Amino acid sequence: MKCPGYITDEFLRHVLREDIGRGDMTTDFVYDGRRQGSAVIKAKQDLCLCGVDLAAYVFFMIDETLESKILVRDGEFIKKGTPIMEVSGRADSILKGERTALNFLQRMSGISTLSRSYVAEVDASSKTRIVDTRKTTPGLRTVEKYAVRVGGASNHRFGLDDGIMIKDNHIVMAGSITKAVEAVRRGVHHLMRIEVETTNLDEVREALKAGADVIMLDNMDEKMMAEAIEIIGDSAITEISGGVTLEKINRLSKLNADFISVGALTHSAGSRDINLTLVID
Amino acid sequence: MKCPGYITDEFLRHVLREDIGRGDMTTDFVYDGRRQGSAVIKAKQDLCLCGVDLAAYVFFMIDETLESKILVRDGEFIKKGTPIMEVSGRADSILKGERTALNFLQRMSGISTLSRSYVAEVDASSKTRIVDTRKTTPGLRTVEKYAVRVGGASNHRFGLDDGIMIKDNHIVMAGSITKAVEAVRRGVHHLMRIEVETTNLDEVREALKAGADVIMLDNMDEKMMAEAIEIIGDSAITEISGGVTLEKINRLSKLNADFISVGALTHSAGSRDINLTLVID
Amino acid sequence: MKCPGYITDEFLRHVLREDIGRGDMTTDFVYDGRRQGSAVIKAKQDLCLCGVDLAAYVFFMIDETLESKILVRDGEFIKKGTPIMEVSGRADSILKGERTALNFLQRMSGISTLSRSYVAEVDASSKTRIVDTRKTTPGLRTVEKYAVRVGGASNHRFGLDDGIMIKDNHIVMAGSITKAVEAVRRGVHHLMRIEVETTNLDEVREALKAGADVIMLDNMDEKMMAEAIEIIGDSAITEISGGVTLEKINRLSKLNADFISVGALTHSAGSRDINLTLVID
Amino acid sequence: MKCPGYITDEFLRHVLREDIGRGDMTTDFVYDGRRQGSAVIKAKQDLCLCGVDLAAYVFFMIDETLESKILVRDGEFIKKGTPIMEVSGRADSILKGERTALNFLQRMSGISTLSRSYVAEVDASSKTRIVDTRKTTPGLRTVEKYAVRVGGASNHRFGLDDGIMIKDNHIVMAGSITKAVEAVRRGVHHLMRIEVETTNLDEVREALKAGADVIMLDNMDEKMMAEAIEIIGDSAITEISGGVTLEKINRLSKLNADFISVGALTHSAGSRDINLTLVID
Amino acid sequence: MKCPGYITDEFLRHVLREDIGRGDMTTDFVYDGRRQGSAVIKAKQDLCLCGVDLAAYVFFMIDETLESKILVRDGEFIKKGTPIMEVSGRADSILKGERTALNFLQRMSGISTLSRSYVAEVDASSKTRIVDTRKTTPGLRTVEKYAVRVGGASNHRFGLDDGIMIKDNHIVMAGSITKAVEAVRRGVHHLMRIEVETTNLDEVREALKAGADVIMLDNMDEKMMAEAIEIIGDSAITEISGGVTLEKINRLSKLNADFISVGALTHSAGSRDINLTLVID
Amino acid sequence: MKCPGYITDEFLRHVLREDIGRGDMTTDFVYDGRRQGSAVIKAKQDLCLCGVDLAAYVFFMIDETLESKILVRDGEFIKKGTPIMEVSGRADSILKGERTALNFLQRMSGISTLSRSYVAEVDASSKTRIVDTRKTTPGLRTVEKYAVRVGGASNHRFGLDDGIMIKDNHIVMAGSITKAVEAVRRGVHHLMRIEVETTNLDEVREALKAGADVIMLDNMDEKMMAEAIEIIGDSAITEISGGVTLEKINRLSKLNADFISVGALTHSAGSRDINLTLVID
Repeated sequence: MKCPGYITDEFLRHVLREDIGRGDMTTDFVYDGRRQGSAVIKAKQDLCLCGVDLAAYVFFMIDETLESKILVRDGEFIKKGTPIMEVSGRADSILKGERTALNFLQRMSGISTLSRSYVAEVDASSKTRIVDTRKTTPGLRTVEKYAVRVGGASNHRFGLDDGIMIKDNHIVMAGSITKAVEAVRRGVHHLMRIEVETTNLDEVREALKAGADVIMLDNMDEKMMAEAIEIIGDSAITEISGGVTLEKINRLSKLNADFISVGALTHSAGSRDINLTLVID
Repeated sequence: MKCPGYITDEFLRHVLREDIGRGDMTTDFVYDGRRQGSAVIKAKQDLCLCGVDLAAYVFFMIDETLESKILVRDGEFIKKGTPIMEVSGRADSILKGERTALNFLQRMSGISTLSRSYVAEVDASSKTRIVDTRKTTPGLRTVEKYAVRVGGASNHRFGLDDGIMIKDNHIVMAGSITKAVEAVRRGVHHLMRIEVETTNLDEVREALKAGADVIMLDNMDEKMMAEAIEIIGDSAITEISGGVTLEKINRLSKLNADFISVGALTHSAGSRDINLTLVID
Repeated sequence: MKCPGYITDEFLRHVLREDIGRGDMTTDFVYDGRRQGSAVIKAKQDLCLCGVDLAAYVFFMIDETLESKILVRDGEFIKKGTPIMEVSGRADSILKGERTALNFLQRMSGISTLSRSYVAEVDASSKTRIVDTRKTTPGLRTVEKYAVRVGGASNHRFGLDDGIMIKDNHIVMAGSITKAVEAVRRGVHHLMRIEVETTNLDEVREALKAGADVIMLDNMDEKMMAEAIEIIGDSAITEISGGVTLEKINRLSKLNADFISVGALTHSAGSRDINLTLVID
Repeated sequence: MKCPGYITDEFLRHVLREDIGRGDMTTDFVYDGRRQGSAVIKAKQDLCLCGVDLAAYVFFMIDETLESKILVRDGEFIKKGTPIMEVSGRADSILKGERTALNFLQRMSGISTLSRSYVAEVDASSKTRIVDTRKTTPGLRTVEKYAVRVGGASNHRFGLDDGIMIKDNHIVMAGSITKAVEAVRRGVHHLMRIEVETTNLDEVREALKAGADVIMLDNMDEKMMAEAIEIIGDSAITEISGGVTLEKINRLSKLNADFISVGALTHSAGSRDINLTLVID
Repeated sequence: MKCPGYITDEFLRHVLREDIGRGDMTTDFVYDGRRQGSAVIKAKQDLCLCGVDLAAYVFFMIDETLESKILVRDGEFIKKGTPIMEVSGRADSILKGERTALNFLQRMSGISTLSRSYVAEVDASSKTRIVDTRKTTPGLRTVEKYAVRVGGASNHRFGLDDGIMIKDNHIVMAGSITKAVEAVRRGVHHLMRIEVETTNLDEVREALKAGADVIMLDNMDEKMMAEAIEIIGDSAITEISGGVTLEKINRLSKLNADFISVGALTHSAGSRDINLTLVID
Repeated sequence: MKCPGYITDEFLRHVLREDIGRGDMTTDFVYDGRRQGSAVIKAKQDLCLCGVDLAAYVFFMIDETLESKILVRDGEFIKKGTPIMEVSGRADSILKGERTALNFLQRMSGISTLSRSYVAEVDASSKTRIVDTRKTTPGLRTVEKYAVRVGGASNHRFGLDDGIMIKDNHIVMAGSITKAVEAVRRGVHHLMRIEVETTNLDEVREALKAGADVIMLDNMDEKMMAEAIEIIGDSAITEISGGVTLEKINRLSKLNADFISVGALTHSAGSRDINLTLVID
């Protein structure tokens, strides 16, 4: 069994060590050395499932002899009460992995369920795609970006090293949008596009002229965004950003920008409730 | 400058690597090698601040020559617009740490602000204390438990190795509460108390008789909890748990159990909005 | 094959690296690439065996194709000359693991054999249990505490984070036993007991009044200990400590304290002699 | 302040983590955030001191602001009651490092004191030097070999990669001493000598003829050793080994071999008693 | 002093450990504990210097008290015999860092000197830029790509995660260029361009039609490349690749592609000779 | 499958992380989740193969289900066009390992092919052996020294801790050859020989008198070397060093020194061209 690609064995060892430390005392003292059991993990709320392979892998890391049977796949929307997976084998091993497996499932399903809601709000006639941001939980960037994809939304860049985005503070540092774009163009390798953050139409025009490949319309009102998108036309990719909420998505999507980026997908998704019940053989 | 005790240098290196990877291209190409700047971090919502020393330490890890000035201390409740800290020095170094510092501040302040709300709901006449659970974000256990304390609530055990809690699944595995308590008592060192999860009055009585030091009343209705607390008296510590929400806290606290444990403190606290603005010298 | 729970793969890799470094030159140059062999590990002194699973695991880490056959289990008392385990397969792999496997077996059996001697001295009529201390070899805490259990004694806390013990220096720092206990009580989670170190009867009384759960009688004479134990009665758990030797155990155990803690179990146990003999197929 | 060369920061972090884990609860709860203190570390038995720089470094790792003053240097023989070092600064930091610093000092001084006893037994007229073996505590090889040198004895090779020693099991594997020496000679780099373990005079003669640079006389009686040493003359370096005790050293040293190797220096040295007393400013 | 951004402390520790292992025996035994010295590092061949900050940092890692004085900066072309840097302080520390510092300087200067030669061959009238490839030494990717920049050439993508390049084997896997481009377009984030490797004019046309942003002309003859570049015009960025040697650069650059990529910059640059001479104060 | 002994899993993980980072985007987007394929790795130049087990292991680390079939063994000299190995299984996994596997094979075969050329130049009548130096690529010491052996040459010491070499700078530090040798003799363990670097006949005589076991003749002209070798006779091992090129080897070997050390084996060997072609099943 292999670690899912969106996380690493090293990080999982850190997570298990943080929960188990020197050992799961309660379980070790209670376990008689022989008991086998099986456990069912169930949704306690409606949710778009995410993290089931990781949950199975957590049990595998605890004890390679545990058997996991996955009943629902990542991305499926399920009703409260639906069984998600079963795990069977040594009863103590199941209990040692329970909390960690559930903590992952609950948070990841929270993000995928929320992402799904945003995507559902995009107007049917719109080409707009919902993308995430770098406002993720420290340490869980790739995990949360995976959950965003599972929910049907798309990813923006993963870090500061796989995408160029010239933001307000970079423009302050460079002196102007034009200077910033030129400086980046000289150094960056030729497989990278350049995105520029703009807050008004003058900046949009400057960014276009400087040759920006992607233009972010940051915290503009809808009227200004509509004008900006018209000015830009096919000359650059467009991205709406700033204070986006679920309520606004449908109207914003009708502006037909290429992308709307939403920090809330990762920074404000609550957990979905999921539990585990053990039966002793 | 030292890493705050609730996190490790090793974990922070992981977090910075996840955001910066091979380098912050945008900033490196834009930076002219000389610019100094200063930045202000401000609350964009009312909040109970948490993580300011960690934010300062993040900038220190990026560049030891940056100067941080902390204006508000962890635990203070501040209004929208209040400046939290300033950081000054090389402009590029400030921008490299921006997102990571903010991601920590926003999440940690989310937890401390929520914890503060729960504590405020406890009735003035009650001895009850609000405690957290192990339903924390994978990898951030000690960080989030610190935020709970900053918000005025208390911590439950940190992991499976520093506290004994006999839960439903352990009882299933052992055969009965009595057998489970006896098994633990034989093995555990003498500085540990034993907590038992109960769901009805028979279980409460069995736990008491078996010598449990702490009894959790899990998902009982209020009437049953009141009876249980009376039965237990001074013979054990009492903890209410299960489905606790902010709305219920005041009423539950009047039952005068020793503790109410609340998973939502860590699994459902959203981010508080905080931003950084750079000025070039 | 899995790493025994009392040690980690990471630590074992450190240990193997320290012995083998860039490679076992002698063995590699002598080995012809084909020789198979089998080796017997034997006790050269009477001993209470400890570490046999770890020894087998060391050979497994060196070479997964080696076959180990365990003949004696941890905790068994065996006579000089008794074969403990056999390992067979590539002759070079056996020799690379020899010294590390033996170094573990010899030290761990030294501790379990000594612990067994202490436990045997406890008077048959006494409830007293022998426990260890934190005076362990740096880096081997969990290994040595496992050996103590194998010898029939019990463990005290594992570290500074899974048990509260207010010692002389803490009392100096707090100003008094009472202040120290109060300060701890405010902060510590409710699954922890509080132990206080006392050196005379006034301190015993103060600790009792402050609500200590466990009272250590440190370096008292027997008469004072007897009085202390009577004063304490059932109000707290009692632990005798300080200058305990094998000769004194029987008399001390008649005082019927709950525990006697003995640093010598880990800090002064010598090695037991064990060797390995190779036969080439 | 730098980590002593015989240990690494990485290993020390492991050691501190094993004792402190998630935090020193007792000290953290008792500490009021302001108390400064100073502590004296004293010998409670006569001993040859070893590890004082490491003890100071342990406190430095805990808290860089602590000040250590070393009063006795490694290698000095001191009487019971002699102050060894002082450490002053934050009282809580001192207590967090106490046990780890003492555990190192006690074990290392145990080895250096025992090594010193062995060296003292060597006859004044003898050229023989006392050397250690690879029978060291797993994980502490370089620390213990340093303690051997501090006690006035010398080191044998450090691991399997910095010295060639053809032992009984290698000879079994190769078929004969001659074949083993030839195989090694073909592969090993030219800055390495070759040592061969022998148990009788025929083997001594074969080793000599095969061109061994160093010949170990393993578990021979004194008469045979005397003959072997005469046969060997200046043609090879000689080393006595096997069952060497303190009582035998003087007689053995009169045989005038170049070296006597003694496993007991590291595998059977008990701790020397050392303690720490805190005074609050 | 900070680790240069193109390498990590962790990797440098690996490199120092590989050379020094358990210690620099020769130096440690020869050093008398007091000698101070100063050393000069000099070019023994003409070269374009690269790695001087790293060399200084290597000495700093060995011993923070060493003083380095840099006389020539990375990117300067210097004649045989030119002093590059001086380092002064403890004589033993200087010798411990010597080989590692020189090994870096020699290899890095080899790459920057060779890169400089390639850049010098580009015709003055051409817009073509020389870029590197992923044919770097395992473990030294960012170090060697830095040396390429120091020599005046540019970098291609750093790894498989910061640039899309559809190569022959990907096309085989997808079935066609068109299918491969479409599959990538669906998944990749919008800050990434897509490069396609082509080997004939049909493939060039298909790539263009599929919307490739960058087209690589791989191992074509000059005539075909000229045609391809004309076909592509401004519709995509062009990159020449395959079997490029120093002799061919001038002619190839006259084709006026945007880029020529050259594996030899990193996979076939020999060392430049540089040495260190110590003077004792 | 096991990691070849000349490299570590930890280092390989670093190498794969440097190439793959957060993921091989191109391959992941193109891969349809089902395609199986097989690839052939072929020599594109004549070469002495080195690294084929490592290449197979790289694919195994990427995906344990890939099947490698090795067609040529390390050390064989093969003609351009010869297939070296095949790998089959999931097509995406093959592509992820391609560049890393080839980068190793190309560099390692470069070194073994060059080493083979040097060894072939040694005169048939000479006892001289060709050895490498510490002028290796940082991080790849053991890999490159393995490649030297595969090419038929021998290794000198691996690092500063497994061989004593007193070089010019050590002699400067000690004051004289004699003082340096004496200092080392006092400290070093008895399985180590001592090598001294000399540059003229007076130094040769002093080294001999001081008891050097190995004498390096550094940068002497041939006449002086011949005299030195005669002076030394059987009293020490001899090693020629300094400015050795392939052209000079035959003449130098006729001087019949024991060893000639050649830095160029590792610091100036270019890559040999090797490629991989994928076929989809």
